[in-house]
Amino acid sequence: MLRLPAGQEALVTTDFSLEGVHFRRQWHPAESVGHRCLARGLSDIAAMGGIPLAAFLSLALPEKLPQRWVDAFMRGFLSLAKKFSLPLAGGDTAQSPGGVLADIVVLGSAPRGTAVLRSGARPGDSLYVTGELGGAALVLERLLRGSRKKVQASRHPAYFFPVPRLATGRMLRERKLAAAMIDISDGLSTDLRHLCEESGVGARVYAEQVPTAGGAANLPFALHGGEDYELLFAARQKLPAQVAGVPVTRIGEVTRGSKIVLVEGGKQRDLPAEGWEHFSR
Amino acid sequence: MLRLPAGQEALVTTDFSLEGVHFRRQWHPAESVGHRCLARGLSDIAAMGGIPLAAFLSLALPEKLPQRWVDAFMRGFLSLAKKFSLPLAGGDTAQSPGGVLADIVVLGSAPRGTAVLRSGARPGDSLYVTGELGGAALVLERLLRGSRKKVQASRHPAYFFPVPRLATGRMLRERKLAAAMIDISDGLSTDLRHLCEESGVGARVYAEQVPTAGGAANLPFALHGGEDYELLFAARQKLPAQVAGVPVTRIGEVTRGSKIVLVEGGKQRDLPAEGWEHFSR
Repeated sequence: MLRLPAGQEALVTTDFSLEGVHFRRQWHPAESVGHRCLARGLSDIAAMGGIPLAAFLSLALPEKLPQRWVDAFMRGFLSLAKKFSLPLAGGDTAQSPGGVLADIVVLGSAPRGTAVLRSGARPGDSLYVTGELGGAALVLERLLRGSRKKVQASRHPAYFFPVPRLATGRMLRERKLAAAMIDISDGLSTDLRHLCEESGVGARVYAEQVPTAGGAANLPFALHGGEDYELLFAARQKLPAQVAGVPVTRIGEVTRGSKIVLVEGGKQRDLPAEGWEHFSR
Repeated sequence: MLRLPAGQEALVTTDFSLEGVHFRRQWHPAESVGHRCLARGLSDIAAMGGIPLAAFLSLALPEKLPQRWVDAFMRGFLSLAKKFSLPLAGGDTAQSPGGVLADIVVLGSAPRGTAVLRSGARPGDSLYVTGELGGAALVLERLLRGSRKKVQASRHPAYFFPVPRLATGRMLRERKLAAAMIDISDGLSTDLRHLCEESGVGARVYAEQVPTAGGAANLPFALHGGEDYELLFAARQKLPAQVAGVPVTRIGEVTRGSKIVLVEGGKQRDLPAEGWEHFSR
């Protein structure tokens, strides 16, 4: 039973966190898994400019999972929830026939008719992203190559403990600065395609303008790497350098048609959706 | 983005349907799996007396699952949704590392402050159930013993295609007839314990009064079998024989303390929570 303030509408998001797909127990400390589970849901709410009201966690656990793993998972989850004063209001539990399975539901709200959609981009809009892209993929690449010991969670908080851009998303909505928005969970090239498809538009991205974690050599990670949980949005007007304390960078523009292209070194080519598909490759 | 009518509050439910835990592909036709997945969520809304507004389905599928299985799953799901004019408003998809994993989220509503809770039972209340109990466990017992060929889904619609008691739950709320309510998904003995624990009360159940599918010999199924998706509720007043066209039966009463007892053949004994734990035994 959750009250929505008068004049608000409900936003509901649901996101899986599956062992072997979204995380590996030998790579990700349980606290990080719990944190990132909730972060996935909160990031979806941020992308609508919404205000999170409550979380619901469904958790299926293998029979032999140590209780201390579950405790650490819940510590990570609840610590992020506390940061946003978010109550854990319910959920479901089951025994898992395989690995750890979590599904996070976040109920949020926004004043009626104001939530930012993916479908509002129009030709001529500028495309912006928050923060830097590719940082998560850089860490994941190191995990894929080596052992977890070499990759300390405490040294890579943006990957292991990402903080969803709730304040920025909300301010973009309140000031009517974002015509369309999506969070970058699957990689810029894939999430940009989602935004363009739902808006019925194309896009041009300038490689040199993409804020790339670790420098320009990592551009492929910035274009296709997922799990950065930054925001991608279309804006009709020029934005300041920061929104709610977070840097925003113009990376291109919305075009007519449906083609999504990358301009690099003065040359233009198609930008295929090659977003990170977790560990399935 | 979902509008709640003015003065309503939001109800959110989330329920797993996991292959090997809640269903088996060799036992349950895909249409039944899809139907029952949604029925689990709707039954939770019914138990609060709520009105379902929208469903969100998260679905993780094994790579080699035939498309026709998915199509049939969705047919079963959407056919039940249509019965209650319920839109499928979103969800998540992923590749499953194991079997089919579904999580159903239902957003519902009830006028502010009126949703029926599990915690409202008081000593002296009567305990009622809708319909008959144990029917699902009877079918499941046959599935556990034999082959699916002997158990035709079309001949056991109450098990393979249960219809949640939404109209009855809603009427009980509107007429303020239920002081506390829960749906019987895990078995009467287990769900009665949940209701008693949340209300801080005990209960006395009369074996001879429990409406038992297939006759009194099946009492253990009626007491402990799950997946009937009937409603169990505490009432302050005597009820008519039917509510919204569904038979309701008085099976006992709420008592002080915390003991839950069964009276059978004039003798009283403890009623342990031995609710059906799916296929884990």
